[in-house]
Amino acid sequence: MADSDNDYLVQSPDPQHPANLIPELCAKFWHLGWVTGTGGGTSIRDDDLVYLAPSGVSKELVKPADIFVLELSKQVNQKERIYLRKPPVLKPSQCTPLFIAAFTKRNAGCCIHTHSQWAVLITLLLERQRANTKVFEINNIEQIKGFARGFGKEGNLGYHDTLRIPVIENTPFEEDLTDSLEKAMEEFPDTCAVLVRRHGIYVWGDTVHKAKTQCESLDYLFQLAVEMHKLSLPWLSNII
Amino acid sequence: MADSDNDYLVQSPDPQHPANLIPELCAKFWHLGWVTGTGGGTSIRDDDLVYLAPSGVSKELVKPADIFVLELSKQVNQKERIYLRKPPVLKPSQCTPLFIAAFTKRNAGCCIHTHSQWAVLITLLLERQRANTKVFEINNIEQIKGFARGFGKEGNLGYHDTLRIPVIENTPFEEDLTDSLEKAMEEFPDTCAVLVRRHGIYVWGDTVHKAKTQCESLDYLFQLAVEMHKLSLPWLSNII
Amino acid sequence: MADSDNDYLVQSPDPQHPANLIPELCAKFWHLGWVTGTGGGTSIRDDDLVYLAPSGVSKELVKPADIFVLELSKQVNQKERIYLRKPPVLKPSQCTPLFIAAFTKRNAGCCIHTHSQWAVLITLLLERQRANTKVFEINNIEQIKGFARGFGKEGNLGYHDTLRIPVIENTPFEEDLTDSLEKAMEEFPDTCAVLVRRHGIYVWGDTVHKAKTQCESLDYLFQLAVEMHKLSLPWLSNII
Amino acid sequence: MADSDNDYLVQSPDPQHPANLIPELCAKFWHLGWVTGTGGGTSIRDDDLVYLAPSGVSKELVKPADIFVLELSKQVNQKERIYLRKPPVLKPSQCTPLFIAAFTKRNAGCCIHTHSQWAVLITLLLERQRANTKVFEINNIEQIKGFARGFGKEGNLGYHDTLRIPVIENTPFEEDLTDSLEKAMEEFPDTCAVLVRRHGIYVWGDTVHKAKTQCESLDYLFQLAVEMHKLSLPWLSNII
Repeated sequence: MADSDNDYLVQSPDPQHPANLIPELCAKFWHLGWVTGTGGGTSIRDDDLVYLAPSGVSKELVKPADIFVLELSKQVNQKERIYLRKPPVLKPSQCTPLFIAAFTKRNAGCCIHTHSQWAVLITLLLERQRANTKVFEINNIEQIKGFARGFGKEGNLGYHDTLRIPVIENTPFEEDLTDSLEKAMEEFPDTCAVLVRRHGIYVWGDTVHKAKTQCESLDYLFQLAVEMHKLSLPWLSNII
Repeated sequence: MADSDNDYLVQSPDPQHPANLIPELCAKFWHLGWVTGTGGGTSIRDDDLVYLAPSGVSKELVKPADIFVLELSKQVNQKERIYLRKPPVLKPSQCTPLFIAAFTKRNAGCCIHTHSQWAVLITLLLERQRANTKVFEINNIEQIKGFARGFGKEGNLGYHDTLRIPVIENTPFEEDLTDSLEKAMEEFPDTCAVLVRRHGIYVWGDTVHKAKTQCESLDYLFQLAVEMHKLSLPWLSNII
Repeated sequence: MADSDNDYLVQSPDPQHPANLIPELCAKFWHLGWVTGTGGGTSIRDDDLVYLAPSGVSKELVKPADIFVLELSKQVNQKERIYLRKPPVLKPSQCTPLFIAAFTKRNAGCCIHTHSQWAVLITLLLERQRANTKVFEINNIEQIKGFARGFGKEGNLGYHDTLRIPVIENTPFEEDLTDSLEKAMEEFPDTCAVLVRRHGIYVWGDTVHKAKTQCESLDYLFQLAVEMHKLSLPWLSNII
Repeated sequence: MADSDNDYLVQSPDPQHPANLIPELCAKFWHLGWVTGTGGGTSIRDDDLVYLAPSGVSKELVKPADIFVLELSKQVNQKERIYLRKPPVLKPSQCTPLFIAAFTKRNAGCCIHTHSQWAVLITLLLERQRANTKVFEINNIEQIKGFARGFGKEGNLGYHDTLRIPVIENTPFEEDLTDSLEKAMEEFPDTCAVLVRRHGIYVWGDTVHKAKTQCESLDYLFQLAVEMHKLSLPWLSNII
């Protein structure tokens, strides 16, 4: 049976079906400037099924028929990906192993990858400022309350908590980021995101809603932090 | 009778009905970047009925069925809120006591809470510049004419008038802002808004239209003021 | 006959009818941030009939039924405006005498008033930099070719031409700007716009299309000029 | 046969037909701020047929009926353009010879011209910084992977590759740019774009998709580079 026969996997009248949600999210992210010029991607996991936006497509134009589907439990070999459904003329996303890491290591239900300029600028500012510190830190901003406290923990961060997002170095081939992304997940077990130097960010969450709103909140904080830097306002403060 | 039975309260073919206006406003505010990542909220009062956007929802996706309703005169106890209508799976907004303060203390018809980055940056600039001055002031900008002269007063501010918006300190729990918000209302009886340090802003008005346009005008002034600061242009000037 | 009886004046199935164009333009300008919080306005002249957006309305929500209509030739007294059609609950725009100045002194077919922040910032930068120079000047930018050469002249400005936009001082009451606007028109007979200090801009053109595109091109140049100022790049240069 | 008789050339129910794609792209570019005030343009080549957006039209309002069509192989004389279809009241784009250069010299399938402010600012920064260096260079940014390796070459640029975009000087008449644009194409045979000082950019690609996504990726890099400049972050770095 050809991969492309399983079209039923991406055909549903339910707007909450992953094959309908991914196009809606991708279009939204394109308008936010996060997935310019085919950059970035989005994946949703529904139990063992993983739905993926294709590579090399204008993200505001993604259609349900463009979605790749694979079974998480069947991916024994990172080099030889087996797809339940594969659109004939499209290429799978190079982000796939990174999305899978979020699904397997963090039990995420959705993972979003953007090339947000604010995220890139934060990694550039950190690169220059503190060469050995591979983490973005900010505290005492209300928006921090938008993040889950951590993997397997109940509730969200508080206003006085410090949000910490690790930064990993970029590699020429996106799939080669997988090891360092997984290492960052281990070192920062509570993080919901990993910044990639000069590249962008990966953000995940238990649900599509949580991944999306955490991605929005992070972008809000990155933009705010760049503006704070321009105005010589520090990202960390001692307020009690 | 279960709270969720009163669905008729949020079902109306009239686009001006609060249950239809709140979703429209929330979507507009999301596109303006004011309610990113479930932050912020909106409430409309129609006589004794108060309609509230839910907490923890992507604000561009709010539906009439998501709206909470309560009776203003029945809220005798801040800790035990009684709802006429409560969507079963959603949580009420933590902003509720602050919205109620605007309705009871200022007879407002609508109150909007945003996490606007321009508002947050203004509070950060004030925090650094003048630690003991808890007010944003600007004058001699035409947009100032967009604000009501004050509570119980006729007409709008004039071009040469100084707009003053008080700033209160943020607290870990949003409901704990209520006392200082009410105190700021007393100290600045004519203000239509209170800035919350490192958090955002609460804006109200006699009508939905007035609250919305004052919120827009404030955001315009905050953005302008941040740009003025970058260009070393003072917020206050002596022009006659 | 009551003013409000002439509803036929604003009812047309033609999308190019002024009563249909004004709402479309106002909504577009609101999304561009030019008419935030009821600020700004738009007027179209069709032969002797002048169509005006109302005052005090959220500009993205203007409807054909909200439009005021007057006869240009019948306006003998600035203080007592006579309307052919006047929506019962709305107030006419305070910009009316300024729009009329563009129609009578420059034979304009459309006049647009915005509170664009870029325009306001330009007037603030000029106020500080050169107190006695009441004109914004820029040259050697391709977008300058988007402006008509001048009143009664054929063709557009060239790349090497210097665009000059006069600045007038703001007044507490918008109608009091009329004299200085007319004076600026006389002093700069070829200008298609007048900047108002700390307020915004008035832009006109022979047609709706010309007024709109000149307003867009000006805003482009103001934004560019503010960014150039931040980067210490001069607005005038000697290139041949 | 009059030029305007060939209406069938721009009438198709297929959304992928050039006469339908050009209006869609122009509207998208207007919302991105690339073709403000009638500036800029877009052309698609389908085999020997070239479709062109008209000059002097608000780009968000372009309709299929506004599209010009010519045969590439029939254009023997640059001064006397022969159109297969010419809308009676519209003027052809002054960019036509530049679009044709991309089609004939680089076998492009689509060419886009924008007045993007980020592109203009980059040319201004280069003008000041290094008067004799007529090229924008950036490396070690992930988005660089969005560009084709070069004319007649397979694949895309890599993360460590340096993207080089030549800059040519502006001229009073747009068609006079043709020679220097062609010269820049020869000097930088792999470039997919040419910056025009104080004017904007021309970007092309083998397909509509490639031209559009390369144009987006360039604008992303120009905006990022301006922000990097403001933050004193260099465009070139040594990372391996």
